[in-house]
Amino acid sequence: MRDVAVLGVGQTKFGELWDRSFREIGIEAGLQALVDAKLSSKDVQALYLGSMASGSLVDQEHIAPLILDYAGLSSRHLPALRVEGGGASGSLAVHQGYLAVASGLYDYVVVGGAEKLTDVPDTTGNQIASASADHEWEVVFGATLPALWALIARRHMHEFGTTREALASVAVHAHAQGAKNPLAHYRNKLTIDQVIGATPVAEPLGVFDCAPLSDGAAAIVLGPWEKARQHTDTPIRIRASEVGTDTMAVHHRRSVTTLDSTVAAAERAFRSARRAPADVDVAEIHDAYSIAALCALEDLGFVEKGASGPAFARGEFSGGRLMVNPSGGLKAQGRPFGAVGVAQIVEIVRQLRGEAGERQVAGATVGLAHDVGGTGATSVVHLLERAN
Amino acid sequence: MRDVAVLGVGQTKFGELWDRSFREIGIEAGLQALVDAKLSSKDVQALYLGSMASGSLVDQEHIAPLILDYAGLSSRHLPALRVEGGGASGSLAVHQGYLAVASGLYDYVVVGGAEKLTDVPDTTGNQIASASADHEWEVVFGATLPALWALIARRHMHEFGTTREALASVAVHAHAQGAKNPLAHYRNKLTIDQVIGATPVAEPLGVFDCAPLSDGAAAIVLGPWEKARQHTDTPIRIRASEVGTDTMAVHHRRSVTTLDSTVAAAERAFRSARRAPADVDVAEIHDAYSIAALCALEDLGFVEKGASGPAFARGEFSGGRLMVNPSGGLKAQGRPFGAVGVAQIVEIVRQLRGEAGERQVAGATVGLAHDVGGTGATSVVHLLERAN
Repeated sequence: MRDVAVLGVGQTKFGELWDRSFREIGIEAGLQALVDAKLSSKDVQALYLGSMASGSLVDQEHIAPLILDYAGLSSRHLPALRVEGGGASGSLAVHQGYLAVASGLYDYVVVGGAEKLTDVPDTTGNQIASASADHEWEVVFGATLPALWALIARRHMHEFGTTREALASVAVHAHAQGAKNPLAHYRNKLTIDQVIGATPVAEPLGVFDCAPLSDGAAAIVLGPWEKARQHTDTPIRIRASEVGTDTMAVHHRRSVTTLDSTVAAAERAFRSARRAPADVDVAEIHDAYSIAALCALEDLGFVEKGASGPAFARGEFSGGRLMVNPSGGLKAQGRPFGAVGVAQIVEIVRQLRGEAGERQVAGATVGLAHDVGGTGATSVVHLLERAN
Repeated sequence: MRDVAVLGVGQTKFGELWDRSFREIGIEAGLQALVDAKLSSKDVQALYLGSMASGSLVDQEHIAPLILDYAGLSSRHLPALRVEGGGASGSLAVHQGYLAVASGLYDYVVVGGAEKLTDVPDTTGNQIASASADHEWEVVFGATLPALWALIARRHMHEFGTTREALASVAVHAHAQGAKNPLAHYRNKLTIDQVIGATPVAEPLGVFDCAPLSDGAAAIVLGPWEKARQHTDTPIRIRASEVGTDTMAVHHRRSVTTLDSTVAAAERAFRSARRAPADVDVAEIHDAYSIAALCALEDLGFVEKGASGPAFARGEFSGGRLMVNPSGGLKAQGRPFGAVGVAQIVEIVRQLRGEAGERQVAGATVGLAHDVGGTGATSVVHLLERAN
């Protein structure tokens, strides 16, 4: 297996993109990434596309050849396929693209993620989101994704004394970062009081603890490390790409407050990259619900189990010890399911290149991306590193 | 890249399985394949699952960890993901599993395909099937999959003089084979007159020219060739695994009667295996509509363009020159979208092992599997070979 580099990145604005179709946003992100990689479309050898629910959302399955087609690439009959794993679909596509290049099968592949969530009513969108939980054992009994994460939050508060304010501090941080991100769905700042006082969704989680339903697409170009310098002065190496899974239903888990899929993926990633959590300068983590970010910081090994709430509230993860979600995360940058995992890589690459503008984490060399499907039946961890 | 062997195969009955859930059929096929491969579940290192539309059909996305979970494997947090490409989802999963073993990433992986189509009304199932065509340029104008294939059939008749009887002979052959297959959805024989006289669906195609909506699952275990003899006396080698794509919309193609995705995938497969169409002893090809089988035989290189109709009607592909679809194909064995491509590999492996019972093609050494999504925006070709 050879080393793999990210050669180019592209991303649309995230938000309510009512004037643009699924295929339009998919192509915009892909072409941006190709231009950024200084490649022409004729260099592309395969496409891996992450999308959770394009069939339910826009009546369109079979989207990988669709995007190739509308990018003008159909005449080359390239291999193309869609990868799905709930909200982790984008990072699973990155994992497959990584494998295709690492194995030597292809030199240059495009990995995309796209979702169009606002073409259906909010209630439908939320129902579709719950298709990433266990339909027969959770959803039919009325459990929705926010309800399941609220249950995890309640237990975290009970076991570890995590406060409502600590949960709220996750959303406040996300919006502070979103305000600096021109591609973010939400660019308004929030206060702790606003988050706590917001309309409840599933207590203790209010509407500002929950990431929005967004439209959006992101893409990256992967290639062999040995050719990376032909494309960029700041090549970014993928040091690890690891997938972990767990039970679908929360009630079947060893512990309600630990995502073992994240623990497994993180352990494998740090081991294979010969790195430790303390080496990470910048991280994009799953914060679809405020509690998810607190669990993630613990399960990734950045802080001891149960200690994330006070540490977050103290600012340790807003740049104190580590900067998490400089993009604004799912909460503020937005949550177009299948695009999220690819957009995380886009942000980490921009940070490691020193191209993140107002959001730049000074001197960032090692970055981590952490993507979750549903309530954690899938977790994906990528470690990226700047060469020098 | 190292050589890859199919070590075990498993398959449920195809048909209307109202008493069994998506997860139940998925697990049944997977466990059969593990037992057949003389492996325990603790040897499994990853799962690749093909399914086209589980979200729309059974309100469940995120199905790869679901199947691992209900197979009792969640505690190992294995990598698992779903692959989708319309009706070709199963063979795309095989392709990804092949790549994972060929690259050396894993030794033993399970590839599954599953679909549960009869839990929704027929009309809904057919609408969902059309999500593999181009929604914005075909489906919204009223085109359905049978309507699009009927258009291809009309053009084939116009260009090449293909007869209604030749189309019907595809279905007659499929049902003759289905009658010998205990797992087939349909085991009744048909006559040419019955096919031609059946209720029209989209002329010239009648209801007996169209494969049914079926429930079903299939699975295979892949492993490195050098370990194959530990598991079986008749190891089957995957000689080629190739994917081709094309435009989504039929009207955008160079030729309405040629599936360039199939031409591309077949050329790549024969080249990489250093084989020719004449070497193939047995083939499972895409016959979701009778015309699809005629196009496939031409596009795979088994017969000249336009000549498949008379050749099929003469029996050349019912064992004369080549045996196609010994299983009964999609038409008679059944058409649970995501399971089809995996089931094709199951049948080819059984044929090459000499374990196909009443359906056995004597002395079969080289087999081909050909899977199509939609009207051909994706085609996948696998070549398999018995060692001795």
